[in-house]
Amino acid sequence: MNAELISIGDELLIGQVINTNQAFIAEQLNTVGISVTRMTTVGDREQEILASFNDAWKSHDIVVVTGGLGPTHDDITRSVVCKFFNTNLVRNETAFRNIERLFASRGLPVTPLNEQQALVPAGCVVIQNTQGTASGYLFEKDRKTMVVMPGVPYEMTAMMENFVIPHFSRKPSGFVVRHRTLKTTGIAESLLAEKIGDVNDLFVPEGGVSLAFLPSPLGVRLRISVRSTSAVDADRALSEVEAKLRAKAHKYIYGTEKEELEEVVGRLLLEKKMTIAVAESCTGGLIMDRLTDVPGSSAYFLQGSVLYSNESKISQLAVPEGSLLQHGAVSREVAEALAAGVRNRSKADIGLSTTGIAGPSGGTAEKPVGLVWIGFSDNQGTFAMKFNFGTHRRRFKERTSQAALELVRRKLLTID
Amino acid sequence: MNAELISIGDELLIGQVINTNQAFIAEQLNTVGISVTRMTTVGDREQEILASFNDAWKSHDIVVVTGGLGPTHDDITRSVVCKFFNTNLVRNETAFRNIERLFASRGLPVTPLNEQQALVPAGCVVIQNTQGTASGYLFEKDRKTMVVMPGVPYEMTAMMENFVIPHFSRKPSGFVVRHRTLKTTGIAESLLAEKIGDVNDLFVPEGGVSLAFLPSPLGVRLRISVRSTSAVDADRALSEVEAKLRAKAHKYIYGTEKEELEEVVGRLLLEKKMTIAVAESCTGGLIMDRLTDVPGSSAYFLQGSVLYSNESKISQLAVPEGSLLQHGAVSREVAEALAAGVRNRSKADIGLSTTGIAGPSGGTAEKPVGLVWIGFSDNQGTFAMKFNFGTHRRRFKERTSQAALELVRRKLLTID
Repeated sequence: MNAELISIGDELLIGQVINTNQAFIAEQLNTVGISVTRMTTVGDREQEILASFNDAWKSHDIVVVTGGLGPTHDDITRSVVCKFFNTNLVRNETAFRNIERLFASRGLPVTPLNEQQALVPAGCVVIQNTQGTASGYLFEKDRKTMVVMPGVPYEMTAMMENFVIPHFSRKPSGFVVRHRTLKTTGIAESLLAEKIGDVNDLFVPEGGVSLAFLPSPLGVRLRISVRSTSAVDADRALSEVEAKLRAKAHKYIYGTEKEELEEVVGRLLLEKKMTIAVAESCTGGLIMDRLTDVPGSSAYFLQGSVLYSNESKISQLAVPEGSLLQHGAVSREVAEALAAGVRNRSKADIGLSTTGIAGPSGGTAEKPVGLVWIGFSDNQGTFAMKFNFGTHRRRFKERTSQAALELVRRKLLTID
Repeated sequence: MNAELISIGDELLIGQVINTNQAFIAEQLNTVGISVTRMTTVGDREQEILASFNDAWKSHDIVVVTGGLGPTHDDITRSVVCKFFNTNLVRNETAFRNIERLFASRGLPVTPLNEQQALVPAGCVVIQNTQGTASGYLFEKDRKTMVVMPGVPYEMTAMMENFVIPHFSRKPSGFVVRHRTLKTTGIAESLLAEKIGDVNDLFVPEGGVSLAFLPSPLGVRLRISVRSTSAVDADRALSEVEAKLRAKAHKYIYGTEKEELEEVVGRLLLEKKMTIAVAESCTGGLIMDRLTDVPGSSAYFLQGSVLYSNESKISQLAVPEGSLLQHGAVSREVAEALAAGVRNRSKADIGLSTTGIAGPSGGTAEKPVGLVWIGFSDNQGTFAMKFNFGTHRRRFKERTSQAALELVRRKLLTID
């Protein structure tokens, strides 16, 4: 079964609000085998809303509408729904008691404006709103379904989880859609595509499989999608394709789904009962910020420093002044001295460091903006690697932090 | 003039990626008097894309398309554009040199897959991509315009700012829409609304003015919008409303438009020729990460530490072990010792510190998750302030970093 999502609201069309509802609803519908094939956003005007309803209803099994159900003058979705289904408003006692309950809990009397929210289109199934005053509606007609919900994200979310998803789960759609995402870093999209080769070779003979490349500054995600009449077959196909991808690009795959590299590194450190300390120059604290985003990171992350000035590199981590003078702050020698220095000072198992030119200015012909050295030190020794991560300051910091964490991951797994 | 936005990509339809491009593009087009009246999202399939092009082209003056311009097999937008405009691909030398330049800067050879990205539809104006390899296109036909850009947000953003908005600015639409945003922090939306009072009192008699409250974890933005036939009138109305808002909420307004608090603090430090050092516990490096996001921050940010373990607080910044034992790590005494300690060690003018319970677990009845002390030290003395920023780990870190930077701003401006 396929679905179209329609969002209603001028605040979306002027870009005041980012639409997070559509992604949430799509992801949820996917879990019960419903594919969203179009998303539309229109303003608070009757003709535009009616046109979008007509269009969606013609070409889709399911239409999910959000927005415009509030109590004020600019909320017109309810009346448009009545017009579309050629019906009228009737009072719903359950909805009214819910409104009374909500106002009582805030110590407020029910206003006439809110009492009107107990009126719902005749002929619909009413979706109770546990979080607010506007009811949702579900219409079934001509083997099609329209769901109408408020646009307030937490009201909509509760309706989806408590009513809409259970409703569609009871109506098997005849097929399932499954996705799996493999997250890679340290390789450009085009080089990854070359390594993987002809994508058709990856797929199972039964078909229904697709692969997407999703690039971002932190790496390329590979998303496998399978559509099948059987959940068992779909999962088997996913695993087969995943195994083939891993065989071709093992080294670069650090995680799956929404897993972040700092979580993967944290888990490896925990498993190996190892600790880490960090000395950051050009990344300015971002590596430590990411490490400490993980709950429980205090078990392996002890301390670290941001050393922006040359003086602080010398006084805090005993970076030899000679190295700074001879090679400059952005050099293999200083990266290694920082990594070894922070490891010694903290008694951590691993010392990690960065020193580079974050830009947007400050580069030279020999050391351009974007140049960075990442240092690593453990009981096997100390070394540094050179990268160039471009002239955009924030993305430079993000890509450097990702490369530094990836270096730790590969060392911990002895990849390469 | 009106516009429809079309986003292309299966990752949007399955809810894997939240579409932030549409809001950004809509907001930008607004500034040059173009109203977005519909937004559509479709998948990576030729028939769906073509249908959405036909539909949008019929009913709008401008169509802005994003997504599906990458180098891999699932990127089909370019070929659909050729079909729609009945044209073919030709090699663009400027685009090719841009690809060469990008790869050279990363020390990589241009792959055949990427070389193909220098092919663009004949008859379009090529929009150069300063951030990546895929060119954008602009077509003008029958007094209508289609703009096609990559879906990668920072590539699209640069094209909008450098090319698309300047292009449409040169074609006056008959009226202007102007927005101004005042950024506040440290006050809840409802209290700010109370301070501001009846919004109608703010507005100019000519009308066409509106005010929106946009809350976020870092503070509430106040957005003034003016629509007028005259740019001069619009700007004057904006300034009048801004002055009235500032009179009512001066203390909380730290910046305008997209200005970040770390930029404001950085500018003040530069003006006063002062330096800062930071000792972070619960924020894990986020404050320093934010400070160093500002180009030129090395002029006032010298160094700092992330001290997660009690041992590191003692050994690195001479926090008295007695304070830690008697009051615990999350206490006024330790926050003050950290701020004074990092100031002493670094010889900076200001020492700033955080110590708190970031959660999601680890709280007690007396010291719940979300509790944080922020310490401040300068040549006038040392003090700490207590806050509670909730149980969501990342938002706790963000709100703490914001409160710490705001504390510095108010001290530097002697507000309060």
